[in-house]
Amino acid sequence: MQKPSGPREKIIPEGDDRERLSCPDCGYIRYDNPKIIVGVVATWEDRYLMCRRAINPRKGFWTLPAGFMEIDETSAAGAAREAYEEARADLSLDRLLCLYDLPHISQLQLLYRATLNSPDISCGPESLDVGLFPWADIPWDNIAFPTVHWALHHHRDAIGQDVFPPFGNPPGASARMGGNGN
Amino acid sequence: MQKPSGPREKIIPEGDDRERLSCPDCGYIRYDNPKIIVGVVATWEDRYLMCRRAINPRKGFWTLPAGFMEIDETSAAGAAREAYEEARADLSLDRLLCLYDLPHISQLQLLYRATLNSPDISCGPESLDVGLFPWADIPWDNIAFPTVHWALHHHRDAIGQDVFPPFGNPPGASARMGGNGN
Ligand SMILES: [Zn+2]
Ligand SMILES: [Zn+2]
Repeated sequence: MQKPSGPREKIIPEGDDRERLSCPDCGYIRYDNPKIIVGVVATWEDRYLMCRRAINPRKGFWTLPAGFMEIDETSAAGAAREAYEEARADLSLDRLLCLYDLPHISQLQLLYRATLNSPDISCGPESLDVGLFPWADIPWDNIAFPTVHWALHHHRDAIGQDVFPPFGNPPGASARMGGNGN
Repeated sequence: MQKPSGPREKIIPEGDDRERLSCPDCGYIRYDNPKIIVGVVATWEDRYLMCRRAINPRKGFWTLPAGFMEIDETSAAGAAREAYEEARADLSLDRLLCLYDLPHISQLQLLYRATLNSPDISCGPESLDVGLFPWADIPWDNIAFPTVHWALHHHRDAIGQDVFPPFGNPPGASARMGGNGN
């Protein structure tokens, strides 16, 4: 077993009002902030771009291209970057489709509506497979996360709409695995 | 001078494709993610809630109630929390008004439109003063950040609108201090 390292002791820093993790070896204090996930619901004609995950969690299940926003990019640029990294997709972003709050995993998800500029897609390192699925052929029984369900349905709800507020968490839906979104 | 501590050496971790800061004393790797700022543009009748900053940056200047989203809350709950912490405001959130990308400071800002349930406001620890200002009396010459300008104008643009996409960065505007938003 490795010696424990890094921030692991709960302290309340001076001037703060809640516990943060501190490293007893070097004094570093980690301020945990929610992470931003950026991604796309992207289509080619009436087909949806999806990726089969090559990594855990939910390896082997289908998802939308999405991942952690990096510090030096806009949310839209991050969404396009993830689409390239996971599916080698070249796409045009339209507008923010969904804004999901997932406090149980400390995430805020921003998914953009996008259209592919070409149907040429292929696997990046985090994908086992990529596909363009007509709605009826989406691998509904093998979806990675509840939010993927939500976003696909929200995309469909917005078809034909140009100007709309981003969709939020469906009322009453749980984003936990096995929740009613899955 | 204090001995340097905490993550301070640039390394590219295994499986990653960009530099991250690591601590040479304990091996901890810090993944820097963009931070989420949540806040409100809140009104009482035709007056705007603003706070004069008691802390740096921009101590003494006027801002909107806003701050870092915490890990265990939704963005809307965080916005309401900040309004309470900075102005003891009791308010009802309406909808997401603005979504600003500020990659030069690694921030994503989410500002909600809100109405005060009562005009009773007072200073929290991070405010020197709080006020409810009619549009013409907003302390325009002493605004803390360009985004405060943007959000006030975006709020005004949305008056009478119930359903609208969140406003983004004004085209061509700079969010840097001294940029054309300020
Ligand atoms: Zn340490
Ligand atoms: Zn350390």
